[in-house]
Amino acid sequence: MRHQVVIIGAGPAGLMLGRLLERAGVDAVILEQRSADYVLGRIRAGVLEQGTVDLLRRAGVGARMDAEGHAHAGCRLEFDGDALRVDFQALIGQQVMVYGQTEVTRDLMAAREGLTVYGAEDVAIHDFDGKPWVTYRKDGQTHRIDCDYIAGCDGFHGVCRASVPQDAIKTFERVYPFGWLGVLVDQPPAAPELVYAHHARGFALCSQRSSTRSRYYVQVGADEKVADWSDDRFWDELRARLSPEVAQAVRTGASIEKSIAPLRSFVAEPLRFGRLFLAGDAAHIVPPTGAKGLNLAMSDVAVLADALIEAVVEASDAGIDAYSSTVLARIWKAERFSWWMTNLLHVFPETGDFGRRIQRAEFDYLAGSRLAQASLAENYTGAF
Amino acid sequence: MRHQVVIIGAGPAGLMLGRLLERAGVDAVILEQRSADYVLGRIRAGVLEQGTVDLLRRAGVGARMDAEGHAHAGCRLEFDGDALRVDFQALIGQQVMVYGQTEVTRDLMAAREGLTVYGAEDVAIHDFDGKPWVTYRKDGQTHRIDCDYIAGCDGFHGVCRASVPQDAIKTFERVYPFGWLGVLVDQPPAAPELVYAHHARGFALCSQRSSTRSRYYVQVGADEKVADWSDDRFWDELRARLSPEVAQAVRTGASIEKSIAPLRSFVAEPLRFGRLFLAGDAAHIVPPTGAKGLNLAMSDVAVLADALIEAVVEASDAGIDAYSSTVLARIWKAERFSWWMTNLLHVFPETGDFGRRIQRAEFDYLAGSRLAQASLAENYTGAF
Repeated sequence: MRHQVVIIGAGPAGLMLGRLLERAGVDAVILEQRSADYVLGRIRAGVLEQGTVDLLRRAGVGARMDAEGHAHAGCRLEFDGDALRVDFQALIGQQVMVYGQTEVTRDLMAAREGLTVYGAEDVAIHDFDGKPWVTYRKDGQTHRIDCDYIAGCDGFHGVCRASVPQDAIKTFERVYPFGWLGVLVDQPPAAPELVYAHHARGFALCSQRSSTRSRYYVQVGADEKVADWSDDRFWDELRARLSPEVAQAVRTGASIEKSIAPLRSFVAEPLRFGRLFLAGDAAHIVPPTGAKGLNLAMSDVAVLADALIEAVVEASDAGIDAYSSTVLARIWKAERFSWWMTNLLHVFPETGDFGRRIQRAEFDYLAGSRLAQASLAENYTGAF
Repeated sequence: MRHQVVIIGAGPAGLMLGRLLERAGVDAVILEQRSADYVLGRIRAGVLEQGTVDLLRRAGVGARMDAEGHAHAGCRLEFDGDALRVDFQALIGQQVMVYGQTEVTRDLMAAREGLTVYGAEDVAIHDFDGKPWVTYRKDGQTHRIDCDYIAGCDGFHGVCRASVPQDAIKTFERVYPFGWLGVLVDQPPAAPELVYAHHARGFALCSQRSSTRSRYYVQVGADEKVADWSDDRFWDELRARLSPEVAQAVRTGASIEKSIAPLRSFVAEPLRFGRLFLAGDAAHIVPPTGAKGLNLAMSDVAVLADALIEAVVEASDAGIDAYSSTVLARIWKAERFSWWMTNLLHVFPETGDFGRRIQRAEFDYLAGSRLAQASLAENYTGAF
C-alpha cells in the first residue's frame, strides 16, 4: 500500500488535516488505534476561537456549528464571589464560538471521504529521516504503508513523538499540583457565558456544550478519586465556590459523565523530524483553563496542511522547513496565556498568603483596567 | 513638649508628610535616628511617576527636579539580547521623570521649616490607641512629646510597625532567592532611557541619576559578597548580559558606591492602629524592578496628609478612617506589578526550562501586542 501522507490519529487534528489535504487533492490515510465510537466518547473542550471557526467553514464542515453553536461575546470572571464580565466584543471586536469538540469531531468524521483505519493496533513509524513507512496490525494481520510524509496527530501518549530519538527532541513541562473534576449534565447552563471562578476553596468553571447540556468543573487535589465524589457532593462544592447569583442558577441533575483530568503544560521542540511532523496534543499540552487545546491543534494542522500541499503539489520544501518555528510561536503564546489563566484562577497552597493576595490584585487590576481586559480578550479569543 | 503630629523617620516619606502638614498649618515634628548626612548617603531609586512629580510641585519642592530631572517617554526591555522599546508616551500619553531619590530628599530637607530632630535614639511610641506620646534620647537626655497622631515613616526595620501588637497586624511576604549588586559611577548613561535586560546569566539594569551619573545593577545570588566583585568583574558581567548595542555604550569607571540589596515583596495590613499610621517602607516593600518604592511612599503620605489635615483642622475622622483601605488598594496594584516585572526579568533556577520559556513567551507577547505594552506602560508610569 502507498499513500502520499499517513496521518496517525483520528482526533480532530488528524481528521482536519485529512480533510484539508483531500480537498487539495493530496492523498492521505488516517490510522486510529481506537474505534470511532471511542473517539466520539471523549469529553473535551468546547470553545472555538475565530480562527478555528473560519477554518471549519473553509474546510466545508462549518454548517452544523453555524446552526447549533453559540457565539459568546464575553465571559465572566469571579474572585471570592466578586464578578467581572470581560466583553470581548466591546473591547476588541472579537467573539468565540461555543461548540463541543465532540461535535467538531463528528462533523469531520461525517465529511471524510478518504480512508480511515480504526482499530489499527501496534502502529509503528519507520525511516522518517529517509523514505518513510508505517506498519500496523488489524484483525490479526500486519500491514505496511509506504509514504512521503507522516503526520503525528496521535496525542500526548502517542507513538510518533515517542519514536523520535531522545537527543533530537527537547521537552518543556509543568505539572500542576491539582486536577479538574468535571461533570457533564443535561441541563441548561447556569449562565449565558462561561464563568471562571477563583475561590478560597479552589477553582470552579461553569461551561456548556449547548443550550441543554452543561459542563462543570471544580479544582481537586491531584490524588482525589472520582468514586469519592457523589453527584450531591459535587453540586455542593461547585455552588460553594460560585457567587450566589450564579450558584442559585446552577441546575443540577444526574451526571452523564464524571472524570478527573490532571493539569499539565507541555511543549516539544522541534516539531519536524525529516518527514515526520507532530501536531496537536502530540506536540503540546495546555491546561484547559484558557480553552486553547483544540484551537492550537487546529492552527497546527492548518499550517501543516499548507506545508504538505506545497511539498506534494509544488515540490517546494519552504513550508515544511518553516512548519516547526511557525507553529511554535503561536504554541508558546497559548502556553503562556493558559499558564497565566491557570495561575490566576487556582488555589496554590505553596505560594502562601502573599501568592493569594497577588492573585486578588491581578483580579482587581483586571477589573479596573480596560487595557488589561483587552489583553486577556485578545489572548482568549486567539486574536493575538 | 507637645506637637499635633509626630513623624518618625526623615526619609522622603516623613519629610514629604511634614512638608504637606506644615503648609496646611498643622504642626509636626520629625524624629530621625540617623544624621542628615547619613540619610542623604543612602542610594535609592530615581524614577518618579507623574503623580509623584505633581506632588513635589504641589508641595513647592519641584523646582530643581524640573530643572535637572529628565523626562523619559519610554524604556527598553531586552531578552537574551533582543530588544523592545516600550513607548509610554505613544501608548498611553504618559512619561516618567528620572531624578534621584537622594535629590528628592535633599530638596525636601532644604524646604523644611519645622523641627527635625536628627540623632534621636531609642525612639519609642506609647498609647497610640488612646492619648499618644513618644519618647527618645538625644545627647544623653530623654525627651517626651505628647501628640494627637503618630506617623510611622521609619522604614522596614523601624520601631512603629514593631510596636503594633502581633495579633492586630497581618503581614504578607515573598523573599526572592537573589539580590541586586549595584554600582554607581560618574559616567554618562549607556542609553538615553532605562534598559531592563533578562539574560540567561541573570537580570541586568542600566539606570541613571543624571546625564553624568549612572547606576547599573546585576542579579546575584542571595549569598554573594560585595568584596568578591571587583569593578572589572562587575563591568564584564554587566556587558555579558546586555545586547551588543547597549554593552558597547556602557562607559565604565571607578565605582563610587557598590552594594548588594536583597529583593523582597512585603505588605502589612492594616496601616492604621488608633492614632498610629504606617506609610512608605514601614508599610510595604517592593522589589526595585518596577521602580515603585519611592512612588508608593509618596502616594501614601499624600493620602495621609489629607487625612490628618481633615482630622486636625475639620475634626473629621473620615479621612483617617479610610486611610488604610485607600492606600492598600494602590499598594497591592504596585506590589503585583513589581512582582510581575521581577518574575519576567530575573532568572529563577527553580522554575526550570519551562519557566524560562514562559518568560520568553511573555517577552514575545509584549513585543507583538500594543495592548500588553500599554498595560505595562500604565503600571510603570503609575497611570492605573
